[in-house]
Amino acid sequence: MTTSPAPDTTLGDHPGPTPTGPLPVIPDGAPHLDVALVTETLLGRWREARLAGRERAARPELHRPLDMTVADHRERVLEQMHLLAAEDVSRPMLPESLGGPNDNGANLAAFEELVVADPSLQIKSGVQWGLFTSAILQLGTQPHHEAWVPGAMSLETPGAFAMTEIGHGSDVQSLATTATYDPDTEEWVITTPFRAAWKDYLGNAALHARAATVFARLITRGVDHGVHCFYVPIRDEQGNLLPGIQAEDDGPKGGLNGIDNGRLAFDHVRVPRTHLLNRYGDVAPDGTYSSPIDSPGRRFFTMLGTLVQGRVSLDGAANRASQLALHIAITYASQRRQFAGPSPTEETVLLDYQSHLARLLPKLAATYAGAFAHEQLLIAFDDVFSGRGDTPEAREDLETLAAALKPMSTRLAMDTIQECREACGGQGYLAENRLVGLHQDLDVYCTFEGDNTVLHQLVAKRLLADVSRELRSIDRAGIGRFIASRAETLTKRHTPWNRLAQDIADRGQVRRSAETLRQAEFQERLLSDRARVKAEELALTLRGAAKADPAEAAALVNKHQVEMLAAARAHAELVLWRSFSQGIAQITDPGTVAVLTDVRDLYGLTLIQDDLAWFLLEGHLSAQRARALQADVKRLLWRLRPHALDLVAAFDLRPEHVRAPIALGEEAERQADAAAWFRAQRASGEAPISEKAQKKARERAQGTPRDQ
Amino acid sequence: MTTSPAPDTTLGDHPGPTPTGPLPVIPDGAPHLDVALVTETLLGRWREARLAGRERAARPELHRPLDMTVADHRERVLEQMHLLAAEDVSRPMLPESLGGPNDNGANLAAFEELVVADPSLQIKSGVQWGLFTSAILQLGTQPHHEAWVPGAMSLETPGAFAMTEIGHGSDVQSLATTATYDPDTEEWVITTPFRAAWKDYLGNAALHARAATVFARLITRGVDHGVHCFYVPIRDEQGNLLPGIQAEDDGPKGGLNGIDNGRLAFDHVRVPRTHLLNRYGDVAPDGTYSSPIDSPGRRFFTMLGTLVQGRVSLDGAANRASQLALHIAITYASQRRQFAGPSPTEETVLLDYQSHLARLLPKLAATYAGAFAHEQLLIAFDDVFSGRGDTPEAREDLETLAAALKPMSTRLAMDTIQECREACGGQGYLAENRLVGLHQDLDVYCTFEGDNTVLHQLVAKRLLADVSRELRSIDRAGIGRFIASRAETLTKRHTPWNRLAQDIADRGQVRRSAETLRQAEFQERLLSDRARVKAEELALTLRGAAKADPAEAAALVNKHQVEMLAAARAHAELVLWRSFSQGIAQITDPGTVAVLTDVRDLYGLTLIQDDLAWFLLEGHLSAQRARALQADVKRLLWRLRPHALDLVAAFDLRPEHVRAPIALGEEAERQADAAAWFRAQRASGEAPISEKAQKKARERAQGTPRDQ
Repeated sequence: MTTSPAPDTTLGDHPGPTPTGPLPVIPDGAPHLDVALVTETLLGRWREARLAGRERAARPELHRPLDMTVADHRERVLEQMHLLAAEDVSRPMLPESLGGPNDNGANLAAFEELVVADPSLQIKSGVQWGLFTSAILQLGTQPHHEAWVPGAMSLETPGAFAMTEIGHGSDVQSLATTATYDPDTEEWVITTPFRAAWKDYLGNAALHARAATVFARLITRGVDHGVHCFYVPIRDEQGNLLPGIQAEDDGPKGGLNGIDNGRLAFDHVRVPRTHLLNRYGDVAPDGTYSSPIDSPGRRFFTMLGTLVQGRVSLDGAANRASQLALHIAITYASQRRQFAGPSPTEETVLLDYQSHLARLLPKLAATYAGAFAHEQLLIAFDDVFSGRGDTPEAREDLETLAAALKPMSTRLAMDTIQECREACGGQGYLAENRLVGLHQDLDVYCTFEGDNTVLHQLVAKRLLADVSRELRSIDRAGIGRFIASRAETLTKRHTPWNRLAQDIADRGQVRRSAETLRQAEFQERLLSDRARVKAEELALTLRGAAKADPAEAAALVNKHQVEMLAAARAHAELVLWRSFSQGIAQITDPGTVAVLTDVRDLYGLTLIQDDLAWFLLEGHLSAQRARALQADVKRLLWRLRPHALDLVAAFDLRPEHVRAPIALGEEAERQADAAAWFRAQRASGEAPISEKAQKKARERAQGTPRDQ
Repeated sequence: MTTSPAPDTTLGDHPGPTPTGPLPVIPDGAPHLDVALVTETLLGRWREARLAGRERAARPELHRPLDMTVADHRERVLEQMHLLAAEDVSRPMLPESLGGPNDNGANLAAFEELVVADPSLQIKSGVQWGLFTSAILQLGTQPHHEAWVPGAMSLETPGAFAMTEIGHGSDVQSLATTATYDPDTEEWVITTPFRAAWKDYLGNAALHARAATVFARLITRGVDHGVHCFYVPIRDEQGNLLPGIQAEDDGPKGGLNGIDNGRLAFDHVRVPRTHLLNRYGDVAPDGTYSSPIDSPGRRFFTMLGTLVQGRVSLDGAANRASQLALHIAITYASQRRQFAGPSPTEETVLLDYQSHLARLLPKLAATYAGAFAHEQLLIAFDDVFSGRGDTPEAREDLETLAAALKPMSTRLAMDTIQECREACGGQGYLAENRLVGLHQDLDVYCTFEGDNTVLHQLVAKRLLADVSRELRSIDRAGIGRFIASRAETLTKRHTPWNRLAQDIADRGQVRRSAETLRQAEFQERLLSDRARVKAEELALTLRGAAKADPAEAAALVNKHQVEMLAAARAHAELVLWRSFSQGIAQITDPGTVAVLTDVRDLYGLTLIQDDLAWFLLEGHLSAQRARALQADVKRLLWRLRPHALDLVAAFDLRPEHVRAPIALGEEAERQADAAAWFRAQRASGEAPISEKAQKKARERAQGTPRDQ
């Protein structure tokens, strides 16, 4: 058996700077990051909107005081909402027909930045404009737009988005609220049939909403046409509930307590026929149902698809929250000292500890990947919603991309914020340093607007459909060959021959140059092979499900749910890695490219390291290469150490955004004071000597060791 | 090359029950868990004290209202403390000389249970009795005990434990506060030299403390004898600060807001000579220093070692918090339904999803391991503190065990609570369902009483010292052989010959019986080999450090810090696994043993799976075995599914402990209501038919497919 020599994929052995000293020094000849250039690159296509959002997020009146009751926090955020409404900040989302620019990308870009002011404000804005107003715009038609959008935009009509029920969260298709058409009065009768069908977790529902966009099963002439959306007034101008409406308060939550989440129920509440938001389905006065989309399933998913912007904006906001957490923790870690290290008179800066770098820098790398990927998602969203690229395929791709990325960014935000909190020790636990509040607020991002697990299930199904389509598109003999080749792969991995050959080929070939390109090819190949193989193996495993009865199929799928989630994750990580690489490709400054490529490599190698057993067991990686990879990750940590502050500086988080005393010079000042005190004490000659030193001196004076 | 046949370590192929249906049914002939027996086993040696603690934790006046300002919560917890003091709950900790039973194990066992009432109450009790009073008891002598312990016990003197400084948390040896002896007045002069030396994060310091046990460098006759502890009054009876004392409030925190954490500074505060807690060091009226322990280093660590009970009790409380979170999430997951599954009329219970089992059951298994390990820790603690087994070696072992386990249990609690929170979706985010509050409160357990990273560093150093001692105990030739044999291992793992042989040996040997013992041997061998090899490899890698100068040594150690932490973790996991196995060995009921052994196997195999790449790369596991192991983990999840509710029932968490509506029947009732409504609707014949069914019926009536 012959084998071609394996490419050299090691990263060279630059050790980086000595891991200590007062400030990290970038070694002579090493690349520098152009901070302003990276900031500009990250600002992306909607630069102006993002900068305006940052200006807004810096304003103290939009910030959150640390110790407030739930009631006070809710009132404050409502007032903040009125400020935003008065400044017409959501105008970019309005279509041309309502005098707006239909600039959806700009709208979301600005909106995401609000998360650093107060996540409650971001989400309450999202409820009012991103969900309630958007439902009217996306699911309604011109008369609805004219009647209700102005009041929704101005906050004259605070609104709730009444989709989720207690009994059904991410499974919208199974909602139980009904809207039954009564042709005699030409009205809808909206009813909550049982407790589990109460609408729940609705922002604005507990107190502030005057109206709601209510998702209910449309029933006319004895036929259930599935879930549609209705505009329903729920409170009068004094804030009293209208007849037939019940409301409950969800009470205190884990975070986001500036929002009055609550429950709503409807006891035969009547609204006019024209309150059906009728873009995708309508009922004539006599009760005849009609829809431009024939298939009820496709119609439902089309309606839901119009609401994808919630997921898109959470992806961006979660990434911004990770940036803020990393800014705080990395700034603090570069000033805080603890335990004596190489220097006898100076303690070691936290960021000079290997374990501290290993905690924070991979999260920083993943956050960069997320920022670049979010820009791609925002562009895809804007293309569809501007109408420029609005095809069914583009919508489906957009939904899959959002479903792939939102779980990644929200999970990363939680893990990053928690790691940063712990990395700051006791300071991290003080509310003034922001990290605990960020964790509390961002927590629910993982389970709302589509639970992360459910979204990745959707991605996996899409991947399976793609693979199956490929299988269908080749002839029967071709399918046989395909299955045989996969089976051969499965067999091969039971023998170590491949790896053995690789081991031999690898040994002694450790060259240290021209590494960058090879690293990219190496990572791309491993990550894309993994995404493909995980989907293909799943498709082969589940190919019986298509022919099985529904119960058997469901049981079979459920036996491989963990692999489905792993396949979705592998796909999402490939998307993230490629977005990062494409983002770097836009940049021409060589120093910036070099540093960001190291960050990208850290991201890619960490992904591979985290799934290393899979790569080994599947025969994609030899043991030798796997060990080299682990050493490379460590080298990258030290090599990136001097660039850590530049990398967080590029996030353009200003003091008014950061607001955490430990990241605004407080710690540096304390360290300087202490160091000055010790210097003065040493100079004074009055410093006490230590007992240990005294003992040694005494022994020396007696001229003999102490056992005398 | 010959090779002995590998033992069969697969777990058999019992698939467990069909993963659906209304309630999990334990298959005929399958083992049952005796819930009461497991509860008794987990109660452990201090059964009565634990049961009394559980009664206490059930009392509503000791619970926490959900929406309180920081100020109100602090007042409430102070009142609760007075209730506890009036009932003399901490009496078991008192030594015989003060009329107590010196029953330290019982004291901690009862105290840990308070975490389910309100973690703020647990920690504020810990500050008052576990730290402040304990410091007087452990570091002081009889006159101190008589003067100050009664007031501390009765809460007449609320106290702060003033050790940590802003600038020094886990590095106590570097504290900067000074206590300088003035022989003219026979007083100590206590001084905070600069801002970073302010005492910080002290419970009771912001408001309630009247006195503090202050850790400061003892300076007399120009010599610094290192950190000692002093009793310092800080507020008068009206709560006004005494002259020279400054206090600040730490303000709102991420959780534990029932405790008034704050800062203290001392401006030449004078206390009498006798306020030095002088068990381990004293000063005569003329300023002569004396100590029963000659070495300043050993003296310092002896003093600190007396405070180990904080870590011990956090380990127990964190484990109890994990139990509570799992009780809530697993109860809810066994009632909550979402998405249609195998049944056409019934949605699937969350716990019947593979991914849900994979999220929760490994955490349940780890929590069981933690409970058994904690009992071992508590016994070790009681042996030392009762004086029955108080040797320097036993103290060192106790400290190492606490340093190994506290990071494991507190990390597990955070991960478990978060996983449970997300597994409960929106319900998990409501404060009434407890999970978010538990996360907020337990968060700081990871970084206080010894930061988790710092503690595992200590464990690693101890492991290195043990290995080095072994190396020293063999002669020079022996060392050479030892290094050569390790080097041989290192070389071997670069060739896949071993694994190849194992692969061949494994193939076709999959027997399904007598598996239990083999599983235990298999897991024990892998986990103990891993712990040993990681420590030995580290010792070999770092053997140059002993001869290097301090700066070089520190740099070398820092380059392997991540491996040090990994070695400590491997050691801790072995301790946990063994404790679990020993715990099962006490039980004789075969059904209970069988189920708990499955739980133990799930724990052991998950540990191996989580570090699978290491086992593969080191040649401890063949690829074939690794794949079988992954399949075994999945099988165990299904096999344990019907026992999940029994396993959480054994934690003996009563409704007054749980208090989360979703785990107290609310969800079951909603599901029953909804199901009854659907049944009635189907029976009435008035249910609307779906559009899809209508279309099919119409097509059938027309006798042709729709393309006509």
